[in-house]
Amino acid sequence: QKHIYLKSADVCEWREPEELAALLDLELRENGEPQHQLLQRIRDVAKYSVKTNHPRFFNQLFAGVDYHALTGRFLTEALNTSQYTYEVAPVFVLMEGEVLSKLRSLVGWAEGDGIFCPGGTMSNMYAMNVARYRAFPEVKLKGMWSLPRLAVFTSQQSHYSVMKAAAFQGIGTENVFKVKMQGHLSLPLFTYQGAVPFFVHATSGTTVQGAFDPLEPIADICDRQGLWMHVDAAWGGSVLFSKEHKHLMRGVERADSVTWNPHKMMLTGLQCSAILLKDTTHLLKHCHSADAKYLFQQDKFYDTSLDTGDKSIQCGRKVDCLKLWLMWKAVGSKGLEERVDRAVAHTRYLVEEMKRREGFELIGKPLFVNVCFWFIPPSLRGKENSPDYNDRLSKVAPVIKERMMKQGTMMLGYQPQGGRVNFFRMIVISPQLSHQDMSFCLNEIERLGNDL
Amino acid sequence: QKHIYLKSADVCEWREPEELAALLDLELRENGEPQHQLLQRIRDVAKYSVKTNHPRFFNQLFAGVDYHALTGRFLTEALNTSQYTYEVAPVFVLMEGEVLSKLRSLVGWAEGDGIFCPGGTMSNMYAMNVARYRAFPEVKLKGMWSLPRLAVFTSQQSHYSVMKAAAFQGIGTENVFKVKMQGHLSLPLFTYQGAVPFFVHATSGTTVQGAFDPLEPIADICDRQGLWMHVDAAWGGSVLFSKEHKHLMRGVERADSVTWNPHKMMLTGLQCSAILLKDTTHLLKHCHSADAKYLFQQDKFYDTSLDTGDKSIQCGRKVDCLKLWLMWKAVGSKGLEERVDRAVAHTRYLVEEMKRREGFELIGKPLFVNVCFWFIPPSLRGKENSPDYNDRLSKVAPVIKERMMKQGTMMLGYQPQGGRVNFFRMIVISPQLSHQDMSFCLNEIERLGNDL
Repeated sequence: QKHIYLKSADVCEWREPEELAALLDLELRENGEPQHQLLQRIRDVAKYSVKTNHPRFFNQLFAGVDYHALTGRFLTEALNTSQYTYEVAPVFVLMEGEVLSKLRSLVGWAEGDGIFCPGGTMSNMYAMNVARYRAFPEVKLKGMWSLPRLAVFTSQQSHYSVMKAAAFQGIGTENVFKVKMQGHLSLPLFTYQGAVPFFVHATSGTTVQGAFDPLEPIADICDRQGLWMHVDAAWGGSVLFSKEHKHLMRGVERADSVTWNPHKMMLTGLQCSAILLKDTTHLLKHCHSADAKYLFQQDKFYDTSLDTGDKSIQCGRKVDCLKLWLMWKAVGSKGLEERVDRAVAHTRYLVEEMKRREGFELIGKPLFVNVCFWFIPPSLRGKENSPDYNDRLSKVAPVIKERMMKQGTMMLGYQPQGGRVNFFRMIVISPQLSHQDMSFCLNEIERLGNDL
Repeated sequence: QKHIYLKSADVCEWREPEELAALLDLELRENGEPQHQLLQRIRDVAKYSVKTNHPRFFNQLFAGVDYHALTGRFLTEALNTSQYTYEVAPVFVLMEGEVLSKLRSLVGWAEGDGIFCPGGTMSNMYAMNVARYRAFPEVKLKGMWSLPRLAVFTSQQSHYSVMKAAAFQGIGTENVFKVKMQGHLSLPLFTYQGAVPFFVHATSGTTVQGAFDPLEPIADICDRQGLWMHVDAAWGGSVLFSKEHKHLMRGVERADSVTWNPHKMMLTGLQCSAILLKDTTHLLKHCHSADAKYLFQQDKFYDTSLDTGDKSIQCGRKVDCLKLWLMWKAVGSKGLEERVDRAVAHTRYLVEEMKRREGFELIGKPLFVNVCFWFIPPSLRGKENSPDYNDRLSKVAPVIKERMMKQGTMMLGYQPQGGRVNFFRMIVISPQLSHQDMSFCLNEIERLGNDL
């Protein structure tokens, strides 16, 4: 009932780029504009933006809104400070420490280290860099030329950020080996195609299917071979709040580092991503410090270990902890657990609804909140063996997507993957979501796709 | 008059870390809290946070507040989307393009490329990475082992982010050569200590002194030797708005890339940093792309060149353009020019005030808005030749700083640099600043330091 306005409004108001640019009158000019015109511009920006907090926005790994977190974000903006020193961010330095400590305790670590980063890719990059530094501390001073060729291992469906990290950090994408996380990794890795392994990047909650790598066997291998074990739980990490679902990440406490993005399932709003480390030897600081004298003076009148800025590869760093802290204070760990459990329950409801309808073909059995499926329009049903079936099926999702966008009724994504042609991925996390919304969504897919 | 409340209130309300932690009751618990308690928490967060928009906050390279930009930040938070595709951020994809184009035109480029990054260090890292990729495109695939040892050149007083970038990207800090930007660089660089130069990192607006490297001679050298010329104008870039002061960056149009942080002098609020490139061959995308199929489908119904996400090393990326765009619409380029001119005029006023007072010893002649100076307490005046002068002087700024923080009356920073012992750095940019505030500040330094 609280969200009647949102439900009756559209998810998006599609305009072609040229038309939208003209409507917005984006040009920046010599003179300023009067207040009434600025107010109209604000209305236009809101009108033509996608309503990502609409209950029928299923398009990304974020959705919905938490009003306490939003309050925290407004307050962050109003206070406008940078997270690097206690002197300029006393509240947030302490608060970040507390939030990170609590996240680590959910991972299963009584101590450790960590920092908030601008997004999960950056958090994953931190992990790779700290792992490289632990194995070869001379890299900071001397660069890669003093090192043997390195190898990174990751699973087939890991996020593309592992490739971006390898490219950016000078390791090279061809030194990332995509393996099946069980089996293949049990080979001796020390001389993998001539390169020295140092980093295993496992995933808890893959982007498309929401799959969880088996962490225990990966930890066994990493233990045995002295490799850094990183768990990219940017998406899946929130299961750790839930007694019912945390088994999906069994063994995570054996990892060396974990990426976790509360801005995804926990609804804090972009950006809120933590890199958590088990390390207690200040690797993060040793690896990233530059000891800038103008910022981190050692003759300050307070304990300069509170100046956390040198743990970061950034200088100025946005405050990302307040929104999460305030929301957590408001609903408690219990409230966050309920949010996870409710989302998974919603997903199961959706899956059952799909099974009851003709034309919806699920891909795999969802364990988490990603529902992957094909919609088979009537003209293709029972034609699985015809030679052009896959070709025709591949064109269905893009057309339905175009129609839903242009009519603004809902948003969900699609993609091909491996040998599978375009299929839908529906992300079910918004607390504003009802059973009616899910039924509406399935009806809408039928309405938009039945003529294809 | 509008800011009477702020002026009468304190800049900060200092508490020792243990005391503050107890006051804030940071612990996150199983159960949520009632609304009245949350409201009190919000008040506490605000109360104990530094008021960076207070007119007497001179401590960092940001200060003051622009209420249009703040509105843009609130709207950004409410709309909560990610900047990667036109589909999910139609307004902001177009807006980012327009803002970047306008910033480039101030640099002097009719075309080019660019992207907003989470802070100036990240922008500088982008420049180094794209430069490396232009020189050695195989690095993306093969890593640094396929490359000769590389060398980076920068000036003595450049920001520490160049060291962080070299470490993070596998180049190594010992391959960063700090040179005087004139003279030394005219040596043949191709075999600098056995390494191959590829990147020259010049600075427009150094962090401590606000100095500007001479860009024309640097461009001559880069031209002659085929080096990538990067200008870190994170701090100084805003002079490009000003007809009176843009000469400080004469020659910037000859650079290959420019970092510019409107969140500093332009008051957009953290974070707002652009990396601007002259390149028109899509280097940024080629260098960083990972072609994730779930996000950047090529069979979309709109022009997928609008999906700018693959230019970024991030996946999800916060919307950082709206606050700048809205402020620019509100005050026009002319309003932004006035802001720069007024800040420099304020700086000159402050410098004249200092010259009139005993005990204030300026370091260099400020050309920009950084004022560096020693306060010489009465006990040290005329004692420049005594053997413990420097030792005693080095202790003055930290004590005055401690006292001002504990009394909450103002905030400015200090640091040693090269052979100089601790001196103050005062940053004069807040539009809320008055002559009275500056006089207050000097009086206050005298009051707090006269007994030293």
